[in-house]
Amino acid sequence: MRAVDIIQKKRDGHELTREEISFLIKGYSRGEIPDYQMSAWAMAVYFQGMNPRETADLTLEMASSGEQIDLSPIHGIKVDKHSTGGVGDKTTVVLAPLVASAGVPVAKMSGRGLGHTGGTIDKLESISGFSVELTREQFFSQVNSIGAAVISQSGNITPADKKLYSLRDVTATVESIPLIASSVMSKKIAAGADAIVLDVKTGSGAFMKSLDASISLAQAMVEIGTEVGRQTVAVISDMDQPLGFGIGNALEIKEAIATLQGNGPKDLEEVCLFLGSHMLVLGGKAKDEQEARTILKKLIENGAAFDKLKQLVKAQNGDVSQIENPDLLPSARRQIEVKAMGNGYVEAIQAEQIGIAAMLLGAGRETKESAIDLSVGIVITKKVADYVESGETIAVLHANTDDESKIREVEQKVIEAYRVVDHEVKKPPLIYALVTKDGVKRF
Amino acid sequence: MRAVDIIQKKRDGHELTREEISFLIKGYSRGEIPDYQMSAWAMAVYFQGMNPRETADLTLEMASSGEQIDLSPIHGIKVDKHSTGGVGDKTTVVLAPLVASAGVPVAKMSGRGLGHTGGTIDKLESISGFSVELTREQFFSQVNSIGAAVISQSGNITPADKKLYSLRDVTATVESIPLIASSVMSKKIAAGADAIVLDVKTGSGAFMKSLDASISLAQAMVEIGTEVGRQTVAVISDMDQPLGFGIGNALEIKEAIATLQGNGPKDLEEVCLFLGSHMLVLGGKAKDEQEARTILKKLIENGAAFDKLKQLVKAQNGDVSQIENPDLLPSARRQIEVKAMGNGYVEAIQAEQIGIAAMLLGAGRETKESAIDLSVGIVITKKVADYVESGETIAVLHANTDDESKIREVEQKVIEAYRVVDHEVKKPPLIYALVTKDGVKRF
Repeated sequence: MRAVDIIQKKRDGHELTREEISFLIKGYSRGEIPDYQMSAWAMAVYFQGMNPRETADLTLEMASSGEQIDLSPIHGIKVDKHSTGGVGDKTTVVLAPLVASAGVPVAKMSGRGLGHTGGTIDKLESISGFSVELTREQFFSQVNSIGAAVISQSGNITPADKKLYSLRDVTATVESIPLIASSVMSKKIAAGADAIVLDVKTGSGAFMKSLDASISLAQAMVEIGTEVGRQTVAVISDMDQPLGFGIGNALEIKEAIATLQGNGPKDLEEVCLFLGSHMLVLGGKAKDEQEARTILKKLIENGAAFDKLKQLVKAQNGDVSQIENPDLLPSARRQIEVKAMGNGYVEAIQAEQIGIAAMLLGAGRETKESAIDLSVGIVITKKVADYVESGETIAVLHANTDDESKIREVEQKVIEAYRVVDHEVKKPPLIYALVTKDGVKRF
Repeated sequence: MRAVDIIQKKRDGHELTREEISFLIKGYSRGEIPDYQMSAWAMAVYFQGMNPRETADLTLEMASSGEQIDLSPIHGIKVDKHSTGGVGDKTTVVLAPLVASAGVPVAKMSGRGLGHTGGTIDKLESISGFSVELTREQFFSQVNSIGAAVISQSGNITPADKKLYSLRDVTATVESIPLIASSVMSKKIAAGADAIVLDVKTGSGAFMKSLDASISLAQAMVEIGTEVGRQTVAVISDMDQPLGFGIGNALEIKEAIATLQGNGPKDLEEVCLFLGSHMLVLGGKAKDEQEARTILKKLIENGAAFDKLKQLVKAQNGDVSQIENPDLLPSARRQIEVKAMGNGYVEAIQAEQIGIAAMLLGAGRETKESAIDLSVGIVITKKVADYVESGETIAVLHANTDDESKIREVEQKVIEAYRVVDHEVKKPPLIYALVTKDGVKRF
């Protein structure tokens, strides 16, 4: 077998066999197939696509390129949740305790933030002492005892995907649905969950800007899950504005706490209930979405979900007093109000721009090596469909910098992210579609 | 400027600017842009193509990546001829003296053979003592004194093309018309000729298997020549069977000698007259093809063309007695007749298979490092449209090996290359089309 022949076969629109895909990925992992052949192949895939069988084979090959976590020491059906990345997306912090309190074990490995999107691990680290590094045994035993654990992704999960992703990033081959889908799913499969709920974001702040592209990606991922025997459903949720109000690590933890107490932003609560319901159904704790939703609402009302968060934080050595009194969480020295420049209705908020603005304040990483400030960020106070008057506060910057030109730059970015029009605007949907192996249900 | 953005721009079907193309090629030549970005770009070009302006810019950028030969010390209009590569194609050996004897200066740089195609330089080296390495001054002065010189391609012509071609070869990005066209034309332009006659082969033994693809390639090359101010015409000639009868270095020199004496194979003679006529017209030595053809025929009849070959061989230290008596050229120890297995008309001869068979005997190189045997090869005795009877000789292997299994293998390849049918077959055309800047003329 020769890599050049496999590249040509894909270039010419043919289906690759499992053996050919395995040859490529194994050879690439071992350094026997060079970057220049893989990038040409990735570009051929960009143009010619891959069918569900090829995509599933690629996924499995990448999943087996490194450590594969065996979650069988954990009792019950393990349901993972994955978001394709958004701004202000603190759903994992809400869902882990919420779903665990309903009896679905949550053994979650999360990542750190990069660019305009945050990461669950960074967010949790704003809780003093919270440890994101557990041994495999500690991880399993914590999930078995309290029902949930959230740890940092291990270094040796899907090394083939890591290598290929870095290459795609510099060869304009990122935007390929089978390649994106297999990259996400290989990590989920290696992480060992029995079932997977995917939150595919769509809109200006998402990787996928159009609903159709988001649905295609969701379908590709659900197909992979189905092919490899992991029940998978995908929810297409809105990212045409940030989720909730807070963007920034400690700010988001505060909002997650409020949500678990029933006082969170309505959009965040709704997305969590929607995703959580599907996790409960897949986890066998509810017969349908409706029943699941009733269960979850009750767990918020009766304080069980919030209690579960405290247990989780305590188990991972976090400071529970900060959960009980969120004012004790890190907070920024300065709060600067950003004012509207005119009257009108908010038509859109470029979530990506808000994410970048928060990153510029220090909430996010420009490169993997950047240090971040857990206390800073942005709280937006006006959302799409809201009416704003000139001079009214649209957002509050939480900053520690005294560099006024930096503050002006961030302020400017926030203002530019808002599009204000003079006619009334309808609230956008929060959930656009549900994709399961049986098809697409649009809302 | 970033390579990844240029790759993406081409991937998305946009036109690259001259600056972007220059950035890529210069960066790649200097090693600043890595192979993996160039191969992804080449694959994007494979799918999205390049327009004539982009292709011309790429050509000029590669032409200027190394030495550019200034042929101005040579008097007259210098006309180069280039073949896209065929089996049994000894036209350069015929055309250099033929056209020179008509007064068109031929300052020819040729290559060596690789794979199933032979190279003019190897063929000329079957003449004892023939030197293919001349200094630039010797080269110019020989052309000025006797009208022709044929030397080996200098090492530093179009290094960017060499680097890119090697990469394309292992990344399934060879078969792109703008990339092939710019590769060929960059070498021709760097080699300094004023006008270019291209012999684009079409058929089973050619790089381009279909007539339409051959015409598209010819058009792309003529467009480049026109864009950069070098008069260029392209002839589409048949390679659905080997040209002439002999395949192998000394065997081909013998056939070229016979052609210059008026006793060569008719197909070879006709292709040489067609190509040569266009060289004469471009070189200003005839007002049209018809007049040129009359001139060339006369130069063969009156011995002037043959005399010019002898002058050329003498000037480059070759043994002229071998030209006067071709039996003195290297000849193989064994001659093995290949017999027909049945009766019928030859419908096709897979030229590529015959080329490979000759290579297996040692006439050609499997890799750049292979040694070759100048005396060996194959003489086919039946061509398309000929009738063969079972047991009749269809080809003669000229071999030096005593390895009977090797002989059997070659024999088998030759037999398999012939397709024999039971109905009469029409002789295929030799020339399919002429492509000039004014359009395509099909015959």
